Amino acid sequence: MGPSSTYPSVPYWSPIPVFETIAIVGATGAVGTLIRQMLAERDFPYQRIKFLASARSAGTTVEFKGEKHPVEELLPDAFNDIDLAIGSTPDEVAAEFCPWAVERNCVVVDESGYWRMDPKVPLVVPEINPEAALAHQGIISSPNCSTTQMVLAMKPLHDAGKIRRVIVSTYQATSGAGVAGQRDLERGSRAFLDAEDYEYETFAHPIAFNLIPQIGSHKHEGYTSEEMKMVYETQKIFGDDSIKVCPTCVRVPVSNCHSESILVETEKKITVDQARELFAATPGIKVVDDLPSGSYPMPKDCAGDDATFIGRIREDLSCDNGLAFWCVSDNLRKGAATNAVQIAELMVKNAAAV
Amino acid sequence: MGPSSTYPSVPYWSPIPVFETIAIVGATGAVGTLIRQMLAERDFPYQRIKFLASARSAGTTVEFKGEKHPVEELLPDAFNDIDLAIGSTPDEVAAEFCPWAVERNCVVVDESGYWRMDPKVPLVVPEINPEAALAHQGIISSPNCSTTQMVLAMKPLHDAGKIRRVIVSTYQATSGAGVAGQRDLERGSRAFLDAEDYEYETFAHPIAFNLIPQIGSHKHEGYTSEEMKMVYETQKIFGDDSIKVCPTCVRVPVSNCHSESILVETEKKITVDQARELFAATPGIKVVDDLPSGSYPMPKDCAGDDATFIGRIREDLSCDNGLAFWCVSDNLRKGAATNAVQIAELMVKNAAAV
Repeated sequence: MGPSSTYPSVPYWSPIPVFETIAIVGATGAVGTLIRQMLAERDFPYQRIKFLASARSAGTTVEFKGEKHPVEELLPDAFNDIDLAIGSTPDEVAAEFCPWAVERNCVVVDESGYWRMDPKVPLVVPEINPEAALAHQGIISSPNCSTTQMVLAMKPLHDAGKIRRVIVSTYQATSGAGVAGQRDLERGSRAFLDAEDYEYETFAHPIAFNLIPQIGSHKHEGYTSEEMKMVYETQKIFGDDSIKVCPTCVRVPVSNCHSESILVETEKKITVDQARELFAATPGIKVVDDLPSGSYPMPKDCAGDDATFIGRIREDLSCDNGLAFWCVSDNLRKGAATNAVQIAELMVKNAAAV
Repeated sequence: MGPSSTYPSVPYWSPIPVFETIAIVGATGAVGTLIRQMLAERDFPYQRIKFLASARSAGTTVEFKGEKHPVEELLPDAFNDIDLAIGSTPDEVAAEFCPWAVERNCVVVDESGYWRMDPKVPLVVPEINPEAALAHQGIISSPNCSTTQMVLAMKPLHDAGKIRRVIVSTYQATSGAGVAGQRDLERGSRAFLDAEDYEYETFAHPIAFNLIPQIGSHKHEGYTSEEMKMVYETQKIFGDDSIKVCPTCVRVPVSNCHSESILVETEKKITVDQARELFAATPGIKVVDDLPSGSYPMPKDCAGDDATFIGRIREDLSCDNGLAFWCVSDNLRKGAATNAVQIAELMVKNAAAV
């Protein structure tokens, strides 16, 4: 479960320093681009900002607050003067660069899957376990996109009725496989409609007008790595291994926004009206739920929004204490960039309070 | 639940006569077209065949066994000389024509949703409850497409371990909304890619590159009519109201073949190996299940096949006696035309045995 790489234990991160220089690692990717936008939009405080990426992108420029900035190569010494880095890179890149940062007294908010299950690394959704972020030892992980929206939806129900079990089937967008995934869907769809061949870059099977019931690799007794993330990460975020999760992760021909059909069983019964009130009162959640008028969350309506949308709330017909609902969220935002920036904001708030 | 229309009780259908004249009602539709193909392919026995459709299609011709045949208007007296009719029409048409047929001693195998829950009407999947078909009183119903593939998958597990509960999330193709639904997906997708407007004919929301978590109308406490069909029809087919079903039905941008993420809880534990053997030994089911090699059922591979495909078989991580799997089937075939023709074949076998 845990990562095989290690990083030095650095207990001196508490209290957290004020961040003078921040950096975005993987600044040119789909999520990196959104992180740039968000830092600007949300007026994130810093004195200097740096943009790091692989050697391939180093030397190019990225836009930030209307100006072009150079992209520097991701090398150990790049972190010499950085206080806070927000990383969105492949797992193998994060395995390498996070220790470089920590050794140089730089706190990393990491979007990758590499460090999430390390016992030294807090896994944080700010609406759920902000206190965990403050107990970090240099690295703080942001959960997998399919986990984040689910645990956010679970949070008010868990507080009110203690969730024992979750059954979830996902409908995941191609943006989860990055810009190349979205391009694959667009080009593959056009080729299909024109009866032409198309060679997919990121998917093992055609995704245009098709479904792929596999995301990630085979991980555990018939479950994929994506599915096991939803199990392990949920338990870690809630700090409760007794929450059982049975996930089915499916890639669908949608460009952006993951959707999830979720059923939760709680110890204490929660009615539909209570659930609707609990959801509506939770920061980060928007309720769109009026079936008779055809109103519910759909991917086309949720892209570009930081919220997690919930609808189709109803009592489980198969269990007394069950509640079923439908949950859609922009997986590049709350599932990635938004959550990472929110974690970084927690760090700043803490620094300001010291 | 039941239909509001009625039809005369006709106990004299047993024993069943030999069918001289058969008819396809709704012969020009998507399912009607497949029924024509199947009657030809499977060499269905009859002496005379008639093709009926609405006034709009009457006077046109349809092809059958390489010849053109006239389409007659669906009127009461059209059934005067018909012994067996296979109907695939909208509910409101079936409500009207089925009593016309029964009054004229014609047995109807009806694909519509209208009569399915009538206590006088058997609801039949030949692999599950063939005996029910023989106790008919003039009308025999074929289940909804999303139900048929699920109950077929449930059958061997129910026999081996008694299913108590089913949680199902569907990924339903646009062909479930007929030829116009498939056309909507194609034209809507092309328009989307070309950044043009498109007005959908059959869907309340755009389906291209989107998901619609509603199929049918609001029916019961937050559940749609499509979802409640999966509940009621499953119980009726198995003759067991104690089977609890919690469905979520979602339309996805796939042209043909419904997919379902299914979790069943059984009284007696069934292991993955047992389940795989049970599925493989069930007529009508094909197992495609090798996750490490990326092998599982996908809509693009299942169209045009009469089988129900099952893969991703694994133990539920959230319940001791749970089993999760992924199920794909051509909803126009086993979900409609194939099942109706199989029911008609049951009638013929019975007639031959008298």
